[in-house]
Amino acid sequence: MPLTLGVLGAGQLGRMLALAGYPLGLRFRFLDPAPEAPAGQLAEHLAAEYTDERAWAAFADGLAAITYEFENVPVTAARALAERVPVYPPPAALEAAQDRLSEKRLFQELGLPTPACAPVATRAELEAALAALGWPAVLKTRRLGYDGKGQALLRAPADVEPAWRALAGVPLILEAFIPFERELSLLAVRGRSGETAFYPLVETHHRDGILRLSVVVPGATASADQRQAEDYAARVLRRLDYVGVLAIEFFQHNGRLLANEMAPRVHNSGHWTIEGALTSQFENHLRAVLGWPLGAAAARGPAAMLNLIGDTPAPEAVLRVPGAHLHLYGKAPRPGRKLGHLTVCAETPEALAERLAVLRPLAGFPAELQ
Amino acid sequence: MPLTLGVLGAGQLGRMLALAGYPLGLRFRFLDPAPEAPAGQLAEHLAAEYTDERAWAAFADGLAAITYEFENVPVTAARALAERVPVYPPPAALEAAQDRLSEKRLFQELGLPTPACAPVATRAELEAALAALGWPAVLKTRRLGYDGKGQALLRAPADVEPAWRALAGVPLILEAFIPFERELSLLAVRGRSGETAFYPLVETHHRDGILRLSVVVPGATASADQRQAEDYAARVLRRLDYVGVLAIEFFQHNGRLLANEMAPRVHNSGHWTIEGALTSQFENHLRAVLGWPLGAAAARGPAAMLNLIGDTPAPEAVLRVPGAHLHLYGKAPRPGRKLGHLTVCAETPEALAERLAVLRPLAGFPAELQ
Repeated sequence: MPLTLGVLGAGQLGRMLALAGYPLGLRFRFLDPAPEAPAGQLAEHLAAEYTDERAWAAFADGLAAITYEFENVPVTAARALAERVPVYPPPAALEAAQDRLSEKRLFQELGLPTPACAPVATRAELEAALAALGWPAVLKTRRLGYDGKGQALLRAPADVEPAWRALAGVPLILEAFIPFERELSLLAVRGRSGETAFYPLVETHHRDGILRLSVVVPGATASADQRQAEDYAARVLRRLDYVGVLAIEFFQHNGRLLANEMAPRVHNSGHWTIEGALTSQFENHLRAVLGWPLGAAAARGPAAMLNLIGDTPAPEAVLRVPGAHLHLYGKAPRPGRKLGHLTVCAETPEALAERLAVLRPLAGFPAELQ
Repeated sequence: MPLTLGVLGAGQLGRMLALAGYPLGLRFRFLDPAPEAPAGQLAEHLAAEYTDERAWAAFADGLAAITYEFENVPVTAARALAERVPVYPPPAALEAAQDRLSEKRLFQELGLPTPACAPVATRAELEAALAALGWPAVLKTRRLGYDGKGQALLRAPADVEPAWRALAGVPLILEAFIPFERELSLLAVRGRSGETAFYPLVETHHRDGILRLSVVVPGATASADQRQAEDYAARVLRRLDYVGVLAIEFFQHNGRLLANEMAPRVHNSGHWTIEGALTSQFENHLRAVLGWPLGAAAARGPAAMLNLIGDTPAPEAVLRVPGAHLHLYGKAPRPGRKLGHLTVCAETPEALAERLAVLRPLAGFPAELQ
């Protein structure tokens, strides 16, 4: 009997999970309210709300396990489904990651340095937090933020009123603004037996809050940053009795790693692993969720990933570049929408830089990312 | 508008074409009479006979191009569909490959050495051919043979009568038996612009006529064998104005390459390319058919492939082996049926040999292949 895996969310992450899982003999069933969701083009798709209790029975029927690819899946749905079928990563991880305050508190409890922060429910609390943290600072919604949405940078007192008007009404958090040297992302994976694997750190570059470029840090594996990041991630994995891929995003400031946020799922900063690592994050997530041995997470060599936002290049132009790989998600173009990504691999960092120079304009990169 | 590709045949080769094509933003429509065909699990599948003229319109509607993954697709169907939508590889290649005699004649016309052979329609012709070619010889049906079916080895006069009784009634061919040193397979690919790429030679090992193991020949790329095989393949590609992947199987005898047969499609001897080459045979076939630039066909390093016949191992056991990759086709187990394959990659030939030693029993290899 083939194993069928249920996935909450049928976006590009779910689609890439299915593409990694079919060769392993798996079948997939997706639950996602969007009728045109990308994973629905290549697998069974129930178009229903995550909270639709009537859909749960049909969704869960005969599944070997359930995972999710969308971190704003209601925790209530994940917990209810976990009574029928094992759900990994554990719903507690989903819950922790959905609230920026509980996420930061978890990091702090486990000894991970974070940007200074304070919860904000009232205007008075905001003023007090600004006095405590200093300027600049970033006001964020505690929940449902993604790709830079739901946040405002406060550089000076004049920024406070418009930010408050835009964001107030839901629980907020104020975070110290970190003038970081760079942003780094670590992908960790933990199996059902407790086995772990860590991908090399990638340097990530965002614009307007959206990831544009990630580059495997040369020599990451042997670096002190890597050791530090793995140690931090291992603490989170253990505490949450985690199963699956976990992404942790760090600011590096004065050489020090500050944990910024985590995502309890496969992550955009790990898309380079499809061609660039010995085992992709998608395959390793599936192996973890099914209780199978994890695969090696080492990079094959220098690698980078460029997101395709709002528009996609002609396939011919990309495929002409040596070491370049095209990944389109089957989504209709729309400004600001993640439509695909390019991976580029090379034998040397110099060759990678040359290839990236050709691919950046194809990916429509703005000048400051060139 | 996404490009949709039509594929005649929805077996594992079609399934792997779709898995290679989804990241390129392609969609797929398969035509295959088998309701449970493996590609139907992940793409649109019309279950109809290839010769069902009423199904052709529905199948061809809106397709960018049509290809095939099954070499016994009726040529009449390929030609009729080619009047609606471009069909690659060209139906003439399909026609040539479907008849062992026309295939051998094509090789000979192009200067490719082949085993000596003669057409056989009557018992008298068989006796004459045996007198001319000598013993042992192999009597084969000219059409519809695969995986060793439709052939009989004639070692001595006593073998003739039973072979004749088993095979007579359809056009036959007698071929000299070649006591080869080894069997080699070359995968060639040609784009719509005439651009070509060649994968390194693989040594293939069959049992009961079914491919069991293929190993990338160490140092193939720089070898005289590779140059010779590429030259032979290039002649065939040009003559047929070929587009797509073409597999040519050679016997090596007294150091010389003899062209045995060809397959105008992606081929089992090229499955190692999914992880083992810079661009898989499946992606390169799609690139060729769509008129896109071809990808590099070099091996990433030592690699081999083991077929899973009739039964499949526990995924955990395979995935525990470093560098091993599992590919299951979503087919119900049945004796003699190709259910999947394993690819194994390594940094050195020695490490590859060690990993192969672990994987052979998992793939259920008979003792003489150990």
